[in-house]
Amino acid sequence: MDEINFAVLGTGGIGRRTLEVSTYKDGLTPVAACDRHGVAVNHDGLDVEEILDATEGNIAGDGTGDTEDKRVTDGGAAVKQHGDGAGIVASAQGTSTETPIDEIIAESDEIDAVLLALPNLEHDFIPRIAERFAEAEFEGVLIDVLKRSRVIGMLDDREETLVESGITFVCGAGATPGLLTGAAALAAQSFVEVEEVEIWWGVGLKSGYEDNRGTVREDIAHLDGYDIETAREMDESEIEAVIEEHDGVLEFNDMEHADDVLLERAGICDAEDVTVGGILDIRKDEKPTTTTVRVTGRTFDGKRGTNTFQLDDATSMAANVNGPALGYLKSAVRRNRAGDYGVFGPAELMPGF
Amino acid sequence: MDEINFAVLGTGGIGRRTLEVSTYKDGLTPVAACDRHGVAVNHDGLDVEEILDATEGNIAGDGTGDTEDKRVTDGGAAVKQHGDGAGIVASAQGTSTETPIDEIIAESDEIDAVLLALPNLEHDFIPRIAERFAEAEFEGVLIDVLKRSRVIGMLDDREETLVESGITFVCGAGATPGLLTGAAALAAQSFVEVEEVEIWWGVGLKSGYEDNRGTVREDIAHLDGYDIETAREMDESEIEAVIEEHDGVLEFNDMEHADDVLLERAGICDAEDVTVGGILDIRKDEKPTTTTVRVTGRTFDGKRGTNTFQLDDATSMAANVNGPALGYLKSAVRRNRAGDYGVFGPAELMPGF
Repeated sequence: MDEINFAVLGTGGIGRRTLEVSTYKDGLTPVAACDRHGVAVNHDGLDVEEILDATEGNIAGDGTGDTEDKRVTDGGAAVKQHGDGAGIVASAQGTSTETPIDEIIAESDEIDAVLLALPNLEHDFIPRIAERFAEAEFEGVLIDVLKRSRVIGMLDDREETLVESGITFVCGAGATPGLLTGAAALAAQSFVEVEEVEIWWGVGLKSGYEDNRGTVREDIAHLDGYDIETAREMDESEIEAVIEEHDGVLEFNDMEHADDVLLERAGICDAEDVTVGGILDIRKDEKPTTTTVRVTGRTFDGKRGTNTFQLDDATSMAANVNGPALGYLKSAVRRNRAGDYGVFGPAELMPGF
Repeated sequence: MDEINFAVLGTGGIGRRTLEVSTYKDGLTPVAACDRHGVAVNHDGLDVEEILDATEGNIAGDGTGDTEDKRVTDGGAAVKQHGDGAGIVASAQGTSTETPIDEIIAESDEIDAVLLALPNLEHDFIPRIAERFAEAEFEGVLIDVLKRSRVIGMLDDREETLVESGITFVCGAGATPGLLTGAAALAAQSFVEVEEVEIWWGVGLKSGYEDNRGTVREDIAHLDGYDIETAREMDESEIEAVIEEHDGVLEFNDMEHADDVLLERAGICDAEDVTVGGILDIRKDEKPTTTTVRVTGRTFDGKRGTNTFQLDDATSMAANVNGPALGYLKSAVRRNRAGDYGVFGPAELMPGF
């Protein structure tokens, strides 16, 4: 396969680590990155180390989602002001702009794939970004790491627009959904009928907390008594109070997690047969529980069994998001070049099981 | 994706069960099958149930490989004479022929994919079949479930011929290599460097023994003191003596198993970092050990861990071969239609990790 150039929208935890992991992969060249302060573009390849060094500490915003219109329409992930420049502008490669996403879109003729590493506190935020790329007649891959089931439907609503532009949109291509969705699709291959998929994750986020405040806020929305809207409106001290109340350990059961619709659309099982839960420990880096996918089904010869996939506790959330995201990105570029446009989930990029 | 028509060469255990499992899959129509006695072709779809019923007991040959030239050049898997007709000729859909593979090749314009479910006791048997399809300018997918590393090289030697014809050849697309190779590729995604892949399988084959004599003979070749040549020359009583000597339980360590080269060619790890072993119990249907894939690697953030994939003991070898084989077949047809020709392993059909 030919070389792939890609851009990253958002330089929070996921964006930064994806740039970093890409340096370990063959054939993947990061050529653009932006946050809401600025943009860095170099079609010969960004100097990733310089960007990471210059923006160290320029971590994702406070997680409030910065609901000013300006943010939603013009910006990537929020970053804290730090050093001489804010966000990516602190890098020698960065230039300040009020319209960073438009600047990336203006360069997109020469970009094969764009990773949307943006918080999606408004359900249609990512879908609207996709629309803007489609309006500019971008022909290539858009890929996100979103979690919420309902966003997939919003992307489907825009499928015709995406197809007309020549966009292959891969949604939910991180850890879960993403790596674990793919694992479920693989584990299902022993069975002619899948009865149940149980995804159970553990995340220890002490040292990664600052980088992942947006993710933690999204997770809080899944706790009993909270939803996306209430979580978005909480201020930092309220978030901290919730964490304190749970002694830093948040357990989630039966989350709204896009694995369900992503497995259904790949024909693996019905969405209602998928359950997702997990435990997040914000005060330790050790995982509070082992991330496990269990797929239970019936074989062609009438047996019933459960296949299991487990991630080592030593693998961080970041490791399990960024490797798969880049893998799915490469796969999607192949599909895009073959003329497969529209909306895809990670399980649909697996062998045609 | 459009409908896929496929043919099966060989109606031993794997061929028969693949026909059966295909009836559970959407968009897959078996249109041709052959063994060394005859051929059944119906481009509207074979009546799988009738074929399976009619040939029940027409199991794979005695595993000697029937080294007469006639077999190698003209025939599919050997079947025992049974009932009124031998092999597939016992089916109302079957017709007798001395050149079954040629008959399938003659129909191949209308066939998208061909599963080679033939024993490969001579290393170059499958590669030579591939050549015959290429000589007939077949444009489509050939897929096998072979196990031996060295055969991949023989296919690579013929890659130019395959590409010229428009053939996408997928090798080693069963359980292991196949399902477990894919699992290793998936499990590797947490890591930027894979240090070790350990594949350990358990098979209980009491009731499936008659259907899988060829497979058992191939496995014996991996025992200390045996090789492919000596195993092929053993008669039935010698095979039974080896089984008796081990009380029906054969343990294999560090087998020559194509998972190694198939993972290397997909860029997952070096072939030498892959070990394959397992236990085969011919006197019980219960698995003597749990089939497990362990992938150990280093994450981008400097941790070391082992991700694990386990198949439930209740899933039979047949279940774990045929589902994945058809899944890889579907994926390969997509690649073929996109113009990707040549030799591929299962891990190369995974998302572009």
